[in-house]
Amino acid sequence: MPLPIALLDRLAAVLGPHGLLTNPSDLDPYLAEQRGLFQGTAQAVARPLDTAQVAQVVGLCAEAGVAIVPQGGNTGLVGGGVAGGDDLVVSLGRMNRLRWIDAENYRIAVDAGCVLAEVQRAAREAACLFPLSLAAEGSCQIGGNLSSNAGGVGVLRYGNARELCLGLEVVLADGRVWNGMTALAKDNTGYALRQMFIGAEGTLGIITGAVLKLFPAPRESATALCALSELGAAPRLLSLARKRSGDSVTAFELIPRLGLEMAVRHMPGCRDPLADPAPWYALIELTSSREASDNDESGLGATLEGLLASAFDEGLISDAVLAGSLEQQAALWRLREGLSEAQKFEGASIKHDVSVPISRVVEFITEASAAVERVLPGIRPCPFGHIGDGNIHFNLTQPPGMDRAAFLALWAPMNRIVHDIVDAMEGSISAEHGIGQLKTAELARYKAPVELEMMRAIKAAFDPRNLMNPGKVLPPAP
Amino acid sequence: MPLPIALLDRLAAVLGPHGLLTNPSDLDPYLAEQRGLFQGTAQAVARPLDTAQVAQVVGLCAEAGVAIVPQGGNTGLVGGGVAGGDDLVVSLGRMNRLRWIDAENYRIAVDAGCVLAEVQRAAREAACLFPLSLAAEGSCQIGGNLSSNAGGVGVLRYGNARELCLGLEVVLADGRVWNGMTALAKDNTGYALRQMFIGAEGTLGIITGAVLKLFPAPRESATALCALSELGAAPRLLSLARKRSGDSVTAFELIPRLGLEMAVRHMPGCRDPLADPAPWYALIELTSSREASDNDESGLGATLEGLLASAFDEGLISDAVLAGSLEQQAALWRLREGLSEAQKFEGASIKHDVSVPISRVVEFITEASAAVERVLPGIRPCPFGHIGDGNIHFNLTQPPGMDRAAFLALWAPMNRIVHDIVDAMEGSISAEHGIGQLKTAELARYKAPVELEMMRAIKAAFDPRNLMNPGKVLPPAP
Repeated sequence: MPLPIALLDRLAAVLGPHGLLTNPSDLDPYLAEQRGLFQGTAQAVARPLDTAQVAQVVGLCAEAGVAIVPQGGNTGLVGGGVAGGDDLVVSLGRMNRLRWIDAENYRIAVDAGCVLAEVQRAAREAACLFPLSLAAEGSCQIGGNLSSNAGGVGVLRYGNARELCLGLEVVLADGRVWNGMTALAKDNTGYALRQMFIGAEGTLGIITGAVLKLFPAPRESATALCALSELGAAPRLLSLARKRSGDSVTAFELIPRLGLEMAVRHMPGCRDPLADPAPWYALIELTSSREASDNDESGLGATLEGLLASAFDEGLISDAVLAGSLEQQAALWRLREGLSEAQKFEGASIKHDVSVPISRVVEFITEASAAVERVLPGIRPCPFGHIGDGNIHFNLTQPPGMDRAAFLALWAPMNRIVHDIVDAMEGSISAEHGIGQLKTAELARYKAPVELEMMRAIKAAFDPRNLMNPGKVLPPAP
Repeated sequence: MPLPIALLDRLAAVLGPHGLLTNPSDLDPYLAEQRGLFQGTAQAVARPLDTAQVAQVVGLCAEAGVAIVPQGGNTGLVGGGVAGGDDLVVSLGRMNRLRWIDAENYRIAVDAGCVLAEVQRAAREAACLFPLSLAAEGSCQIGGNLSSNAGGVGVLRYGNARELCLGLEVVLADGRVWNGMTALAKDNTGYALRQMFIGAEGTLGIITGAVLKLFPAPRESATALCALSELGAAPRLLSLARKRSGDSVTAFELIPRLGLEMAVRHMPGCRDPLADPAPWYALIELTSSREASDNDESGLGATLEGLLASAFDEGLISDAVLAGSLEQQAALWRLREGLSEAQKFEGASIKHDVSVPISRVVEFITEASAAVERVLPGIRPCPFGHIGDGNIHFNLTQPPGMDRAAFLALWAPMNRIVHDIVDAMEGSISAEHGIGQLKTAELARYKAPVELEMMRAIKAAFDPRNLMNPGKVLPPAP
């Protein structure tokens, strides 16, 4: 059904020139989905310039009974920003003002459409750190980061997007604006409304602004790639590192031998820095904003060296390379970042973004790898990622030579095997990417009925007419 | 109206011997309120032993239409645990099991009735830290801490109770149990249900268990009392300390000269450690769990000394004393802790638990002090507390010699003056104590109608019959 002409006219009047896109070729970037799993079909995209315009657009849509799909940088991985033919896309990209920054008190306030890298840059220019960091940071927007409670590589130290947010401004389903832009560290005046919108993937309202925490900029960092004697050494090495470093572990990433080989094989500038192959690697980064003393002995490099020596003595690691320069640091990170992209050169892969309690990470990887190998001998599990958070990107690369389509036909059964094991270990079937529309059926399978009911009650309380990003997050009622 | 006999019989059968108190003298401790602002009148107290009993009790009450007031250690300051004559008190104190601890992965799971100090002790015995710390820690319970999103002295570094909680178990208003006892650092599968119960003061359900974060135990600490050249130096000193210490500032507490004098005058063992009086003081504590090197130069004491030297050079402080031993450290903290109790020896006081953005703390104290002095010359403002969080306990001690009752009669007008200033500065009228029944009218005055409506919608979604701690948090509908 086409959007009512009268509504389009009123939207165009509110949004002004360039504010409403209806020309099919203009719509393409807002309808595409980066993995090609979904294709949007919306007929119009609203591009408001400020919160007042968002409120007017939502109000007009509520009046007309038209559903809204909010969109940030459109970098999501679960189809949360994909709009159907009857929906209006509301793209926040033109709302990209830095509202204010207070470096002395480590606060920044931004429009929802600010690109994450721009927020990082504004912090850096004020000698601060905004620690949210992830692969899409050059194009994802802070409103989308908050709506999906984004994770990334700094979570171990600084928390998810949720922990970095102090205040929110939200346009509600009926078009009213909730101004929750507080910059307070402590505020116990009623229910935690802000927390409802964070991670709700736009199904309860549209985030239009946020107050975020900043941190002192790191003055020092130390990075090492460690060859683990066995997978079981990973959590023990993390625990040792946290204890010995004064809890200054910023990143702790797991890399399997297969992943390192793929990166070295396919990614320019990647090489194996260690003499002998090991089955597993951990990339450790310590950072500190403490002022360096004149005495080198007190530096983080020395701390890292000391803890690696202990790890060696305890048989946790067989070898390690400590980056001696920023360039070497970057080279080690290239291995971790490259392995994700390198997988595509090895054929199709079936992906899982899961987490388990850190105490069960080893058991999970071992059991899940064996299970998928039993079903498809030759399949190549490549579990990697933020093991410090219990978050494993459990990716399965196809057996060499197998037909791509035949392999991808196994997506659902492989999901079932992996998610059943995650569930049995009290883990999460979506650690950081969210539910969107990709995982609503899985959510229905694994969540307790009482929890789904609570979620539906919240949805009904905030969006009784189901006009905010319908079909996302919540599975259809049974 | 008395509770139905049939209900009491069924509750007694569920709860077993000692599980249901109805003898008036047994009820006293559950009906008293520590500041004497309220007096409970309930006829019965249920003391369940486990979650299943809580669920049965709530189910029976739901059936009978009887309201429930959940109670932890009964140490709240806003009347949140005070029960009326028609209510059943559900006291969690007998549910005090440590469910499990995983020191290697910094997690602990406890029953809601565990006393906070016991949780701290269990962590310490496993060489970890559970950082929530507040005056009532010897008797308050973790369920109450979470229900009120408790703050305290470690918030600057570790966050409020909310930030320390990974998983919850809750008995819902209809008696069903929601098992959200996950131990995951990352889990983006739907709405943040846990966050709704934290800080809800028992109005949405009863928290019966929690999974909490632990941290590496500190290995080193350094504490100093600084004489500030002026109030405006406080936030600048904090900012300098965060920057220079590698963000290892654990506490940053403001003490006015009046407060120090009161502590010295009335509290045994309190003395002024500095030669000359100063108008304001800051108590700074740095802690680190980083392994001390052999070289003392790298220690926190040296860091603190260095930053105090800079603060002196910049004119922020006129003098400082650095604790040279654990005993001296304790003596400095006694000043801070003693000043709170010492106030009572100086007559009545009118209290405010407020917060403002850190950037406005100085402006707030200056303006609010002047405003109350205009209304009552001779009144003695004693603003102190967690200034690192923007949280000021803005206490007003009566003028010497004034009639106590006449002074306390000014409670409401003084609240109005102070809260109006807080509100104008986008602050919070309850930074850490919550709303309970003490501040519902203030909430109605200061919250935007749209926010109150959202809160009521959540209440209706979780507790449609208004049986969970009725009359608390939410103001009566207009």
